[in-house]
Amino acid sequence: MQPFEKLEKHFADYMALRRIDVLLDWDRSVMMPPEGSAQRAREIAVLNLRMHDMLSDPHVGEWIDATDRKTLDAWGLANLDMMQRLHLNATAVPADLIERKMMQETKTEMVWRSAKAASDFAMVLPELEKMVAITREYAEAKAQKLNAATPYDALMDHFAPYMTSAEVDVIFDDLSAFLPSFINEVIERQPETLPLTGPFPIALQEQAGWVTAECLGMDKSWARLDTSAHPFSMGVNGDVRITTRYCENDFMNGTVAHEAGHGLYDRNTPASRRDQPAGISQHMGMVVHESQSLSLQMQLGCSREYWNFMAPKLQKIYGRSGPEMSAENLYRHATKVARGFIRIDADEVTYPAHVILRYRLEKDMVHGKLAVKDLPQLWAAGMSELIGVAPPDDKRGCLQDIHWHAGMFGYFPAYALGEILAAQFGAAMKRDIPNIADHVRKGEINVYTNWLRDNVHQHACLYKPNALIEKVTGQKMSAQFFKDHLINRYMEGKAWSSTSAPVAKRHA
Amino acid sequence: MQPFEKLEKHFADYMALRRIDVLLDWDRSVMMPPEGSAQRAREIAVLNLRMHDMLSDPHVGEWIDATDRKTLDAWGLANLDMMQRLHLNATAVPADLIERKMMQETKTEMVWRSAKAASDFAMVLPELEKMVAITREYAEAKAQKLNAATPYDALMDHFAPYMTSAEVDVIFDDLSAFLPSFINEVIERQPETLPLTGPFPIALQEQAGWVTAECLGMDKSWARLDTSAHPFSMGVNGDVRITTRYCENDFMNGTVAHEAGHGLYDRNTPASRRDQPAGISQHMGMVVHESQSLSLQMQLGCSREYWNFMAPKLQKIYGRSGPEMSAENLYRHATKVARGFIRIDADEVTYPAHVILRYRLEKDMVHGKLAVKDLPQLWAAGMSELIGVAPPDDKRGCLQDIHWHAGMFGYFPAYALGEILAAQFGAAMKRDIPNIADHVRKGEINVYTNWLRDNVHQHACLYKPNALIEKVTGQKMSAQFFKDHLINRYMEGKAWSSTSAPVAKRHA
Repeated sequence: MQPFEKLEKHFADYMALRRIDVLLDWDRSVMMPPEGSAQRAREIAVLNLRMHDMLSDPHVGEWIDATDRKTLDAWGLANLDMMQRLHLNATAVPADLIERKMMQETKTEMVWRSAKAASDFAMVLPELEKMVAITREYAEAKAQKLNAATPYDALMDHFAPYMTSAEVDVIFDDLSAFLPSFINEVIERQPETLPLTGPFPIALQEQAGWVTAECLGMDKSWARLDTSAHPFSMGVNGDVRITTRYCENDFMNGTVAHEAGHGLYDRNTPASRRDQPAGISQHMGMVVHESQSLSLQMQLGCSREYWNFMAPKLQKIYGRSGPEMSAENLYRHATKVARGFIRIDADEVTYPAHVILRYRLEKDMVHGKLAVKDLPQLWAAGMSELIGVAPPDDKRGCLQDIHWHAGMFGYFPAYALGEILAAQFGAAMKRDIPNIADHVRKGEINVYTNWLRDNVHQHACLYKPNALIEKVTGQKMSAQFFKDHLINRYMEGKAWSSTSAPVAKRHA
Repeated sequence: MQPFEKLEKHFADYMALRRIDVLLDWDRSVMMPPEGSAQRAREIAVLNLRMHDMLSDPHVGEWIDATDRKTLDAWGLANLDMMQRLHLNATAVPADLIERKMMQETKTEMVWRSAKAASDFAMVLPELEKMVAITREYAEAKAQKLNAATPYDALMDHFAPYMTSAEVDVIFDDLSAFLPSFINEVIERQPETLPLTGPFPIALQEQAGWVTAECLGMDKSWARLDTSAHPFSMGVNGDVRITTRYCENDFMNGTVAHEAGHGLYDRNTPASRRDQPAGISQHMGMVVHESQSLSLQMQLGCSREYWNFMAPKLQKIYGRSGPEMSAENLYRHATKVARGFIRIDADEVTYPAHVILRYRLEKDMVHGKLAVKDLPQLWAAGMSELIGVAPPDDKRGCLQDIHWHAGMFGYFPAYALGEILAAQFGAAMKRDIPNIADHVRKGEINVYTNWLRDNVHQHACLYKPNALIEKVTGQKMSAQFFKDHLINRYMEGKAWSSTSAPVAKRHA
């Protein structure tokens, strides 16, 4: 066997174990009886140790070095790169440092739960300081091995591979100069909404949930929709599963469309390549993946055309046809903008501002430019500057997210980058299919999702994120398309008063 | 680390992978979208190869040899024996023979499906002959390595470990001398039943299914009940899952009680030992396991006392209270005896006769005393002798079961031995709790299941099957208790005309 064949065989087994690992997690979140958690934790630990052993196996490094790149086609090269990336990441940081970091994560997260409940940042401060210290140690070790530009870049690489914080700075600076005054203007001008008063029975919401998933292209021959505390998606090709949650007084939560966007991506990566690292979407990182979920949830799912199509279906399912269930009122609810404290409850417009704040704070923490004890006051200042409100307490401020307390630094930017990229892909789709809005209005959602399939999904990891973005949209990733999208949707032909570029200047 | 500690560490990992394997199968049968089967097959294959590598690892043999048995307590010794058994079975037969056998299984099963549909034994004969030939080769190789009494014993060992065909011969000869005339007499005397005319809506049957499971002691904090084409049970301790199937015109199928019996066994093996081979029920083999499912389904679940308790609950769920839903009529349905062709549809009385026929035929096939081409006529003769009817076609005759065509020789006897053993345990329970019937009538099912827990479940593999049976019931396994049980239930005080021992002679 040639070295590359050995690699393919080795990684085909790894990929099977990886799918099993994902299924164990799905089952734990969706199906497992609560008392099963101890034995499941053990199963996951044993499996993950084996997966880690496979990735860090010294043979992998040897086989990669012995492979003649000239003998590989484009997919082979992408696959070899991905193998190298996985091997490098599995061997970059000493095992004892990883273990110390994991122990600190468990401890900090536990204290954070109490601190959040008590809305008392001081409670978690000592542990969070240790968490940041060990994260810095970890980031420096990893940056050295990965040859990353900064320690923060080494952390971000886990969630947004092949992207740099220098690129993110440009995009976020552009957007943060635009958002505050834009938010003001949108809120000033936005139309009234009629309240959607519940209850909307869960059984009917479940029905509506699957109708939504089916309208977006999911099918029971290869997909499931279930319920879990935190919505997520998993799987690939013939077995894709998404989850959502229901609230009796709110059926407009959008998570089905969001997760269906993830699910269609995984459905549409090439089945013949799913046993190799470059053949699945997840190895592209979170930015492109979030762009696909937000394409369906925000670009498509908050459009007037979408609600024109969906409103009659929902009226029928809920047996309600009053003016509050009109397409126009549902659209207004879907696009309602408000200055809130909580990131996960934020709308399309204010959401990236929440992320930009976190990105700046965590980058400074990792680089030692920010004392952890100053977080609450810096948080309040950032919120005031970007969104125009300061949180009344820690619970609704710097204690709201689990990420830092669970050691996930470098995670946040991908959320907003995905939103920004969804707008960029949206502009490219409009360039390719000028009457896409008409298709959506008629419920021909497959025209929309087929474009995503042909331009994004089917490539899996054949291109690196930046190369894919340039190939599909004709230029590098930029906040411009997102700003244009917001102006189009929220200003609706009205002159936009800021100094930002007007919509006519959009490139596509 | 001592050799035995190394073994415990090694097998703790194996046991975690084993649980994962079982979950993959559950998910495939219950949850997985149909298009997922190809990728799931690959996941199962990769995981099983790793499990097999762990069991056949030469270190295991070395560590077992190096262990000082004097340092081990009773559980340690039972665990060492089980490790040895697993290692021996994993290394007994050369890999290429296993592979040839598996390929023949796949091929024969495929042809069998068509042959069964066409009800044409001749269609599958050539492949089944090859299947038998390769099974003989396999059985001989395994018998040599296991030091089994006969090649058939080596096959049976997989399903009924530590039991011999010589023991089974005695039990089945005893029973087959009793059954034919008993069946005649029961059918002659049995009371009329009022028909249970459907439909019984599936949604209500699902409700009744869980009510039944709960009455038998299952709880959502550690158990699930789902639907699958073939009912089964899986899991251990904090995560036990059973399945059933529903038919709109028949709610009396008994599979929930059957699978709950399996499930309670797995629930009640000691949690502290579940990561070791001797700590789970499945390694005891099928005989004791089936005895637990049949304790609930047949001993308990076909008793008049059980139906006295359950009938009002079912009347309420189905909203029907006519005489056909009376406790007495439901009991009569549960104990209705008929001469049928199909094993899986058979009642408590005729079921073992179906199994005895198959046992005798497969033993002769494995030992070369029966030409495969003669199966249909020998089948007809055996059915006539044991049950009093001969099948009108191959589909309802020797083509009805998948087992031989899928290479599972030696599997059948465990089914009937479980039924026989359930009666023996039942007699011991009555010895220990003379008023057990009163408890059941009042719905105090936990008195019944706690006895099973304390006498059987909690021991897992601490005792070998025959030792457990003697410890709990005071004597070796025997058909006598089962015959007594049948006489008690189906003759109800009426004199039994056969020469078999009367009920008064029962030992307990």
